[in-house]
Amino acid sequence: MALTVVGSIAFDAVKTPFGERQRMLGGAAVHFSLAASFFTEVRPVGPVGDDFGPAEFEVLERRGVVTDDIERVPGGESFFWRGRYEYDLNVAHTEETRLGVFADFEPKLSERSRAADTLFLANIQPDLQRRVRAQCAAARFVGLDSMNLWIDTARDSLVAAIGEVDCVMVNDAEIRQLTGEPNLARAARRVMEMGPRAVVAKQGEYGAALFTRDGFFALPGFPLEDVRDPTGAGDSFAGGFFGYLDSHGGELDEGSLRRAMAYGTVLASFNVEEFGTERVSRLTRKEIEERFEALREMTRFEALPAPAE
Amino acid sequence: MALTVVGSIAFDAVKTPFGERQRMLGGAAVHFSLAASFFTEVRPVGPVGDDFGPAEFEVLERRGVVTDDIERVPGGESFFWRGRYEYDLNVAHTEETRLGVFADFEPKLSERSRAADTLFLANIQPDLQRRVRAQCAAARFVGLDSMNLWIDTARDSLVAAIGEVDCVMVNDAEIRQLTGEPNLARAARRVMEMGPRAVVAKQGEYGAALFTRDGFFALPGFPLEDVRDPTGAGDSFAGGFFGYLDSHGGELDEGSLRRAMAYGTVLASFNVEEFGTERVSRLTRKEIEERFEALREMTRFEALPAPAE
Repeated sequence: MALTVVGSIAFDAVKTPFGERQRMLGGAAVHFSLAASFFTEVRPVGPVGDDFGPAEFEVLERRGVVTDDIERVPGGESFFWRGRYEYDLNVAHTEETRLGVFADFEPKLSERSRAADTLFLANIQPDLQRRVRAQCAAARFVGLDSMNLWIDTARDSLVAAIGEVDCVMVNDAEIRQLTGEPNLARAARRVMEMGPRAVVAKQGEYGAALFTRDGFFALPGFPLEDVRDPTGAGDSFAGGFFGYLDSHGGELDEGSLRRAMAYGTVLASFNVEEFGTERVSRLTRKEIEERFEALREMTRFEALPAPAE
Repeated sequence: MALTVVGSIAFDAVKTPFGERQRMLGGAAVHFSLAASFFTEVRPVGPVGDDFGPAEFEVLERRGVVTDDIERVPGGESFFWRGRYEYDLNVAHTEETRLGVFADFEPKLSERSRAADTLFLANIQPDLQRRVRAQCAAARFVGLDSMNLWIDTARDSLVAAIGEVDCVMVNDAEIRQLTGEPNLARAARRVMEMGPRAVVAKQGEYGAALFTRDGFFALPGFPLEDVRDPTGAGDSFAGGFFGYLDSHGGELDEGSLRRAMAYGTVLASFNVEEFGTERVSRLTRKEIEERFEALREMTRFEALPAPAE
């Protein structure tokens, strides 16, 4: 099995109450790829500038990520994002975004990346997502992320893109905004009426919820006393989720989707322990399995025979 | 086993996008008692005015709630709350609060209510909570709720009250505010350092999390497409939680606490389906057990042998 992801490949400048980095490897496709690399062969697609050098490629390649479809644009500058988080890490402020080579990005997928069994369209302009989707006719499972910007500025394109994927994975506030429905269960049903068979509502520190045509499943965020940088948590979640499903032969029964939710939760939890890609890039499969099991233990309860009324 | 609860016994006027009621039975001790009544003998303690009549007593007594410690103050008016919810039911506005007979409430517990095995101090002024706590020396398990008002205006008393109970059950925002610690796991640990052995963070539609000295457990809110009135959800959760624990002989092992969390979640979910006490007052134990099992099904996942790295 093989997994292709399209999205930003970037440099981030991040300041949190626990430290800062002036320029570190980041971007949705990068966080996704590192997380997914523990499960399957993953190919990120996206443009970078001259500033993206051997050190950056090495972080990806050391994890077995296939970098052939990362397009280096001569004379260009890589996507750059600067943000800061308050003492309450749930409150983030974007201070600068420079699209760089992403401004003129026109995805051209190699034959190998077009042949992927699983495709993830990270948060980019929805018409771009559709052009990538159209190139991956063979994909058996396609996921999509988005954000409030596209709901505001390209709603029709976004709805069309949603109609062409199997799974929408976005923040719960964006599911509500997209559908105009504050009740999350109803909002998720509205999204499924647009086409997808599954909706994953990311809920930040509260975890994530999975809605399917006839099921519901939810997991809390993994409890951590030390969170240093939330950047990339959602993309790491997606990487764990889609990476696991791809490795599992793309089986999409309820049990597999639930395990994928758990792997997503685990990868996101490691991601936020340190800045940028620092923690996930030296993670081991053993650590992942241990935390998967800890999460299972933290969410189990058993029934007893009920006392008489 | 027997359970005593002290807190407001009230009339509520509530308006939500799905309807309104000008005057309905409400108050923390009422919602708590009805939920707990499915599990154990429960005695609410608190004052009411002349306006609290046979119809109100009957709602409680039909569910087996012992009303002997509801003190009727001649010439008095019952606690009254008027609130409205926005289309997004997570956004509530208090429009009027009249303390009535609650303004001069000095708790005098009967011998029977003082002998309770389990005591819940619903959200009232923390010095009042302490005076009730002192009267219930036999209680083996004591819980406490509170709110931002008391953190702002009676912090020292609240901290003293927390030091005298076994379990704090408050909204997660209030745990953060009380401790000045935005990380919930750290904030919960700080609260346990004040004395309690368990902290339950209520998280509204996201569910609830249980922190103990060496454990963590979390449950999502039960997913509902039709929520009509969230008033009393937290108190119904507490009633299910403490009611189950009391019925279960006050055993406080991790398994019992987790089942109590599930019963709390179930009772809260029924509470919000209709206005005020309407749904819970005609609920059956069978419906509770069915939803308990549905919740268990919605939160389970199983491991598979991991693929090789």
